[in-house]
Amino acid sequence: MKKIAVILSGCGVFDGAEIHESVLTLLSIEQQGGQYQCFAPEMEQMHVVNHATGEVAEGESRNVLVESARIARGDIKQLSVVDANEFDALIIPGGFGAAKNLCDFAVQGVDCQINQEVITAVRAFKQANKPIGLMCIAPVMIPALFGQGATGTIGTDVDTASAFTQMGGVHQQADVHNIVIDESNKVVTTPAYMLATSISEAYSGIHKLVAKVIELA
Amino acid sequence: MKKIAVILSGCGVFDGAEIHESVLTLLSIEQQGGQYQCFAPEMEQMHVVNHATGEVAEGESRNVLVESARIARGDIKQLSVVDANEFDALIIPGGFGAAKNLCDFAVQGVDCQINQEVITAVRAFKQANKPIGLMCIAPVMIPALFGQGATGTIGTDVDTASAFTQMGGVHQQADVHNIVIDESNKVVTTPAYMLATSISEAYSGIHKLVAKVIELA
Repeated sequence: MKKIAVILSGCGVFDGAEIHESVLTLLSIEQQGGQYQCFAPEMEQMHVVNHATGEVAEGESRNVLVESARIARGDIKQLSVVDANEFDALIIPGGFGAAKNLCDFAVQGVDCQINQEVITAVRAFKQANKPIGLMCIAPVMIPALFGQGATGTIGTDVDTASAFTQMGGVHQQADVHNIVIDESNKVVTTPAYMLATSISEAYSGIHKLVAKVIELA
Repeated sequence: MKKIAVILSGCGVFDGAEIHESVLTLLSIEQQGGQYQCFAPEMEQMHVVNHATGEVAEGESRNVLVESARIARGDIKQLSVVDANEFDALIIPGGFGAAKNLCDFAVQGVDCQINQEVITAVRAFKQANKPIGLMCIAPVMIPALFGQGATGTIGTDVDTASAFTQMGGVHQQADVHNIVIDESNKVVTTPAYMLATSISEAYSGIHKLVAKVIELA
C-alpha cells in the first residue's frame, strides 16, 4: 500500500488549503489503494479571510497547522517532522494558502520565496526519486523547487502561466480534466479550481493526478 | 436536475460541520446529476475547538455562517432565507456542529432544543413532502423534528441510540455502508463518521444517502 504525505496550508480557499481539493485528494488516495498522512507548517497564516464576504478579517490570526487539522480531523503532524523515507509520494493541494502560507507568490509574484520547511520536504522526496503532485495554484512553486525547465500546469490563466515561465519553468496548458507530467522530475500537476467550475470537475483532474502519483511511486 | 439545499453548521468536526461529510455530500449530489446550494444559520458557534489539540480555544468566537462559507467556497446563504419551494430536497451533514450549533444535544442530551431556523426549514420541506437526509450525529434531531415514531440511525452507539429512543424516535442500527429510510417521513439517514474509520467508508454511505434522497425527490 502506497503511503502519501499531504501538505495542507490552512483550511479555506481564500486563506488556506482549498477544502474540496484537499478532501478529494484524501478520498482519491484511499480509493486507489493508498493511505495518507497530513502535514502542515506550524506558523501563523498570512491573514484570515471572511469567506462569506471575501474581506480580510482585520485583527484575527490563525495558525496554519491548527486550521489544517480541521481538514485532517485532528490527525496532523508538523511539516518539520516529515520523513521522505517513510512515504512513497508527496501531494500539495491548492487554495490561496499554497500561495500565501507555503510561499508568498500571492504577494511577491515572480520574486516569491518558498517556506523553508516546504523546500526541505520537497527536496527530500525529489532526492529519493519519489513523485510529487501539486494542484491548482501550488505548481507556482515548481520553478523554485525543481529548477530551470521543470514542467507543470496552472491551467490556462495567462498571467500566472507567464509568471511560471519567468521563474524558469516550462508551462503547459491543461484543462480541468487533465494532468501534466514532468517525467524527469516526477512531478504531476492539474489545474483543479484554477479552472474547475464545479466540485465534480475538480474531482476529475485530482483523481487522475493521484492515480499518476501512485503509479509513479 | 434536482436541486438540493444543504445545511452546514460551521467548518470542522469538533465544533462545526464535518468537512469530509460536507464535501462528499456536495460531490455525491453533482455525481448523481443534482445541484446544491449551501445554507447556514447566522449565529455564533457554541465554541471554537483547536482541532490539533482537541481543546476548547478559550476566548475565541466564530460565526457559523462565516465558517461554513469556507466549505461552500463563499457561495452560502443565510438559513433564514431558504425556500422549500425552490428545492427538491434537504440534506444536513454531521459533525459536532449539528449537535452544538443546529441543536444543543451535545450539552443537553435528550432535553435538547433545536435551532428555530432549522425547525422552520425542515418543517417546510416535510410539509411539501420533500425528502430530507441527515447523517452522522445530525439524526438526533429527528424525534424533535418529525415526532413520535420517526425512524433513523446514528449507527451503533448504544448511548446515542438510547437517547434517540427516549426522545420518541425509532432507532435502527446500520453499518457505515448503509442507509435507513423512513418512508412515511421521507427521511434518509446514514452513520457516516459515527462509524467510519476512513474517508472512503464515509463516502460509501453518504453516496447511497444522496442517491436515495434524489430518488425520493
